[in-house]
Amino acid sequence: MAEIRVDWRRLQSFTAEVFERAGLPAEHAAIEAEVLVWANLRGVDSHGVQRVAGYVHSVEAGHYNPRPDIRIERETPATMLIEADRAFGPVVTTYAMRQAIGKARTAGIGWVLIRNTTHQGAMAYYAQMAARENMAGIASVCNPPNMAPPGARAPGVHNSPIAIAVPGSGDRFISLDMATSVAAFGKLDVAVDRGESIPDTWALDEDGLPTTDPRRARFLQPAGGYKGYGLALIFECLSSLMVGNPLLTAAITGPGATPGVQNSFIGAIDIAAFTDPATYRTQIDELTAAMKGLPRVEGVEELFVPGEPEERVHRERIEHGIPLPPGTRDKLIEVAVKFGLEVPWNGDLMDDQ
Amino acid sequence: MAEIRVDWRRLQSFTAEVFERAGLPAEHAAIEAEVLVWANLRGVDSHGVQRVAGYVHSVEAGHYNPRPDIRIERETPATMLIEADRAFGPVVTTYAMRQAIGKARTAGIGWVLIRNTTHQGAMAYYAQMAARENMAGIASVCNPPNMAPPGARAPGVHNSPIAIAVPGSGDRFISLDMATSVAAFGKLDVAVDRGESIPDTWALDEDGLPTTDPRRARFLQPAGGYKGYGLALIFECLSSLMVGNPLLTAAITGPGATPGVQNSFIGAIDIAAFTDPATYRTQIDELTAAMKGLPRVEGVEELFVPGEPEERVHRERIEHGIPLPPGTRDKLIEVAVKFGLEVPWNGDLMDDQ
Repeated sequence: MAEIRVDWRRLQSFTAEVFERAGLPAEHAAIEAEVLVWANLRGVDSHGVQRVAGYVHSVEAGHYNPRPDIRIERETPATMLIEADRAFGPVVTTYAMRQAIGKARTAGIGWVLIRNTTHQGAMAYYAQMAARENMAGIASVCNPPNMAPPGARAPGVHNSPIAIAVPGSGDRFISLDMATSVAAFGKLDVAVDRGESIPDTWALDEDGLPTTDPRRARFLQPAGGYKGYGLALIFECLSSLMVGNPLLTAAITGPGATPGVQNSFIGAIDIAAFTDPATYRTQIDELTAAMKGLPRVEGVEELFVPGEPEERVHRERIEHGIPLPPGTRDKLIEVAVKFGLEVPWNGDLMDDQ
Repeated sequence: MAEIRVDWRRLQSFTAEVFERAGLPAEHAAIEAEVLVWANLRGVDSHGVQRVAGYVHSVEAGHYNPRPDIRIERETPATMLIEADRAFGPVVTTYAMRQAIGKARTAGIGWVLIRNTTHQGAMAYYAQMAARENMAGIASVCNPPNMAPPGARAPGVHNSPIAIAVPGSGDRFISLDMATSVAAFGKLDVAVDRGESIPDTWALDEDGLPTTDPRRARFLQPAGGYKGYGLALIFECLSSLMVGNPLLTAAITGPGATPGVQNSFIGAIDIAAFTDPATYRTQIDELTAAMKGLPRVEGVEELFVPGEPEERVHRERIEHGIPLPPGTRDKLIEVAVKFGLEVPWNGDLMDDQ
């Protein structure tokens, strides 16, 4: 089976076109496409265009709102509460991070909560928005349960990710983006698309037993046992409970959570409130060099800081295109057919199927 | 060997007396003793009175400053930078958290950085200060390297802990307090004191190889591999680099870090800026009940939320006293002899040695 690589610009305009056809305003469709393709460019395929068809289904099912009424409900000098009205995640989250950055400029820190957003894609995108403005950026999200607390044989928390980014010189960052599970669910989807098995530490099956078959995986295992569980539970307390929309409790003991809806917290800390940003960025470079220069375990060729492997993939894929495995192509073909669009790659598809 | 249990009030006044003799003002000595004994009460013996002798040594060596000039260096509506002048950690950190709480009341969030503090004890103490004021509390700290990044065979980062606490009803909290290593170094000290071995996933020896002998442990292994490493590195970026005092770089490639000195970030988020605090606290109770009610793996008797096991130990030790293993008693005897104080337990010590 030939590998197909697609130029990122072509993939991005295709994706934007899909979302316009799905009912989003052109500007919103462009943001959504940019955030998804940015994830693919960085090798985070789990949060890239493989999700396009699913998002379109969510619009059709009435779960995602293509024309949301995004409202600021509460505001203080440093905080804000935004009702997203089930907006597409990147649409409301880029808006929220711009608000956080603005507040950080005057108050030193901006802290913005979002209620009722939908899937936000790769959270590092938003954290890096702040880092590009000489700030530390923070972004997290909570969804209904998909991860078992230690000792439980049912999902209790979401494997909520957290992304934190700080700027080095030029376009360099230290950019952490981690799920609180051993692996994110999107990676299981990618394994299904690729027909691969998974380590037995990633997921549990419907009986609560470890599985190596991603198709049998029903929920995730937390990273570091109670640490991953604890972070995930606390993120729910800092987002969903803080915005008056407790997702986990509703899903476990209540009427069930609203499909597709999630809550989020977004922060920006202004470096200039504490120290000189230019000095800070130089010190980030020095810290990066110190980490990379540590003595290595035999067989390890290079040490990385968070975000560096993704940045390397980004450079490669900008130049050589984004590889699309068959399962992902199927999903793009589905939406292309639905909206009468051409798929963003050349050649006779039948040869590749 | 008989187990010795000491009444917490007696242990706390003994500890305060030691610190007064070591040169701290009475008020500061009382804060220091309260935070240390609080850790023992919660079963976090690694951060309790076993450290008293070491702190006294640090004063004698000139590393800890018993009479610090704590200064506010920068301030915005929501942020503050504090120079601790090598104050005892609990002295400056309780001050910093009070500042953060004050700012959160008007700005919605308070974010305070501390430069040049010394060991801060159990970070959950500070997070719970905010939780008692209807806020979410956050506290973290960075020290010189003691943990190996994945692939490195030398320490590169500190196993920086993070504590986050939110209030339920009454005196209940969800209170996460986790190191970014598999286990904290203090737990290795406790294992040495108890003459116990440790799991081979906790620490590496001086050759960078896993060890089960806590006396041979030189540095720690991160929780969840790159996740624990990434969090620890990012915490350094949010504290040490933000206050212009990069500890890791100085220790690895520079002149070495100042002994005993660490940097910290402290946050408080006002629940009332987003939602009704009474409703929030009820929802924390409901979330706790939902977690505890999940189906359990066979053989697991009870599920816990973060902080709950410590709270249970707290109730038991308030009633029955704090157990002191022989190694810890030796350290307390050392300072009792040094300052001509009576140890805070009864009976002929020789019978217990």
